[in-house]
Amino acid sequence: MENNTCCGCSRPDLPWAGRGTNLDISGCRFSLYPMDSNFVPIILGALEKTDTSAVWSQSDALSTVYRGRLPYVVDAVEGLFVNAWQPTVHMALEGQFSKGCPGDTDGDSLLTREGPGPNAQTIAGAHFPVLCKLALYPMGVSDYIDRIAEVWHMAEDAGLNPTSVHYATRINGDVQAVFDYLHAVCRHMEQTVPHYILHFTLSVNSPTAE
Amino acid sequence: MENNTCCGCSRPDLPWAGRGTNLDISGCRFSLYPMDSNFVPIILGALEKTDTSAVWSQSDALSTVYRGRLPYVVDAVEGLFVNAWQPTVHMALEGQFSKGCPGDTDGDSLLTREGPGPNAQTIAGAHFPVLCKLALYPMGVSDYIDRIAEVWHMAEDAGLNPTSVHYATRINGDVQAVFDYLHAVCRHMEQTVPHYILHFTLSVNSPTAE
Repeated sequence: MENNTCCGCSRPDLPWAGRGTNLDISGCRFSLYPMDSNFVPIILGALEKTDTSAVWSQSDALSTVYRGRLPYVVDAVEGLFVNAWQPTVHMALEGQFSKGCPGDTDGDSLLTREGPGPNAQTIAGAHFPVLCKLALYPMGVSDYIDRIAEVWHMAEDAGLNPTSVHYATRINGDVQAVFDYLHAVCRHMEQTVPHYILHFTLSVNSPTAE
Repeated sequence: MENNTCCGCSRPDLPWAGRGTNLDISGCRFSLYPMDSNFVPIILGALEKTDTSAVWSQSDALSTVYRGRLPYVVDAVEGLFVNAWQPTVHMALEGQFSKGCPGDTDGDSLLTREGPGPNAQTIAGAHFPVLCKLALYPMGVSDYIDRIAEVWHMAEDAGLNPTSVHYATRINGDVQAVFDYLHAVCRHMEQTVPHYILHFTLSVNSPTAE
């Protein structure tokens, strides 16, 4: 467990004691769920098509994590989602963007990349509608409700039709607009709070009518 | 949107302004992802088999939410998961337990139930191994890292083999032990912090070897 961290804990009696980083490391842990019996080739094919050279990456049986500078983390996750999308397959992507965990470490990251994201061209050609729910957690601050209010207004301004449901906010829009918004929320958070987590679920081709 | 709330916001310029509840309302918003082309009958069949008479329930295209007293919310979610489980289908359940949102409302809940959970008998007969990742967010308190440390030790004591990964903790065990732990974390949180969210993902029958 040498290089691992758990969100938000630095007690001396725990395996992630004494950690924390001042480096510019954002991360996203995510899982892709194609509701299809061919889910293995869909997931593996998407992972293979996605250029992850600009992030540090690790997969386990439950999820994959990308770590590095925020624009490249978003590029890799969005690239993967676009590469996994198929016109007739209902699919969900569940994930969490985060930065600033007091238990984080300097390692397991890639911070030297410059220039455009390696999946930018793939992403630029992709357009399909996405349903999204999200929940934002600015940690360790008593005025977290004001921080959440700010990003609600950002969703309105972006034309993503935010609606409030119990425990989450829903938005919807084109895949690029939704990822641009998630990216903007992360940028805003890293500028205003020491530690945040943004949980999100994206859904495409849902058979459920509303 | 009259009866809805968004986690953690009570600003007067937003649709959930002036809310908040002192009632004993816990909730769980969750999504079930059977990685199978027959996902619709699996999900609908599980929803139908599950007794949700002890909670308030609402579904949309992205997820379902159960609200009520904590033991009955856990009973309903665990009952649903057990009813959806099939021996050869890889399936994930993504969800978030929560209580204490300052934007919550007195409505959309059921608080009059007494006695054992209506799915207790179904659950008692179910045993299968579950992989789980979780992330706990005690909100609005500066010492949140200490709260997270406490539940790490609870997982050790429960024999669930906690390991720390970036942005989450992993545990594994029998389905009943995992839900008992999630339930115990929620109980502990409601006694120690004004507002918490516990995100979790359960996975069964994963083809990924580790």
